[in-house]
Amino acid sequence: MSELAEAVVVTESDAALAHPFVKQMVVQLRAMDSYGTYDTWSDARVLDPLVLTKERRRQIPVVGDPDETTVSRVKAYYNAIAQMVERETGLLAVPVINLTHEGFGRALILVGKLVALDKSLRDVHRFGFDSLGKMVEEAEKVLSKAVGLVKQHRDVAEL
Amino acid sequence: MSELAEAVVVTESDAALAHPFVKQMVVQLRAMDSYGTYDTWSDARVLDPLVLTKERRRQIPVVGDPDETTVSRVKAYYNAIAQMVERETGLLAVPVINLTHEGFGRALILVGKLVALDKSLRDVHRFGFDSLGKMVEEAEKVLSKAVGLVKQHRDVAEL
Repeated sequence: MSELAEAVVVTESDAALAHPFVKQMVVQLRAMDSYGTYDTWSDARVLDPLVLTKERRRQIPVVGDPDETTVSRVKAYYNAIAQMVERETGLLAVPVINLTHEGFGRALILVGKLVALDKSLRDVHRFGFDSLGKMVEEAEKVLSKAVGLVKQHRDVAEL
Repeated sequence: MSELAEAVVVTESDAALAHPFVKQMVVQLRAMDSYGTYDTWSDARVLDPLVLTKERRRQIPVVGDPDETTVSRVKAYYNAIAQMVERETGLLAVPVINLTHEGFGRALILVGKLVALDKSLRDVHRFGFDSLGKMVEEAEKVLSKAVGLVKQHRDVAEL
């Protein structure tokens, strides 16, 4: 890996760090860090690998198996969305991630008997966003769709 | 394994062999048999390992990781139920099996945005039924519950 790829992209001054979704992402990522690697890391550093600049993307092979850390980031992302769904609907939201070793599969968020989110996953070894801001944008889009579904079919979501 | 455990339990004269669910199970089990092991086997022999008599159960350790063949039987079972849900509702039913290496997890059948079936799985290495008849009984219970849900919430199942 080149020097460039190792350079930090997310800085402490990133405005997105204050966003509730990003804060929830940090909570989820730290919750999965069973070895305590992140204990001495700033939030910005914990989030940094989620941002894939063009330069970083170029360094990841097109085909590849996701490692455990990358898979845990995908899980953290959908856990965070599930948490936000819970907050906005007051109902339990359960994330279900189904992945093959090759990084293909689907992410579900279930609320009662309602599939509030159903997303195909592919190329999980390249999971990331252009910037933290872009991540927030994406997450909010997905979140509002999920919350909308719950509101529309509250009876099924309460089963 | 003792002689007793190897003795075949499901015989060609088992009335349950004619049941549509059992036939669907055979289809699903054969579909997963990528090495062609079952090619020369009768339906009864293909189904036989799904029947766990008391004697057979006694020979399986209480704690253990399920092997690939056992996991494929669990998948065949929920695939078969999903197929029956499709037949009875006319809607696409997608089975999702999420299992840890230790054989814990859940089985879902999704119809549109509806979770038609949601079942916790545990001790998957001991997956089996007292008899083929019992398997049919169980499957029909689960099936009628799933189909009932789809009928009740057809709008969500059609999403």
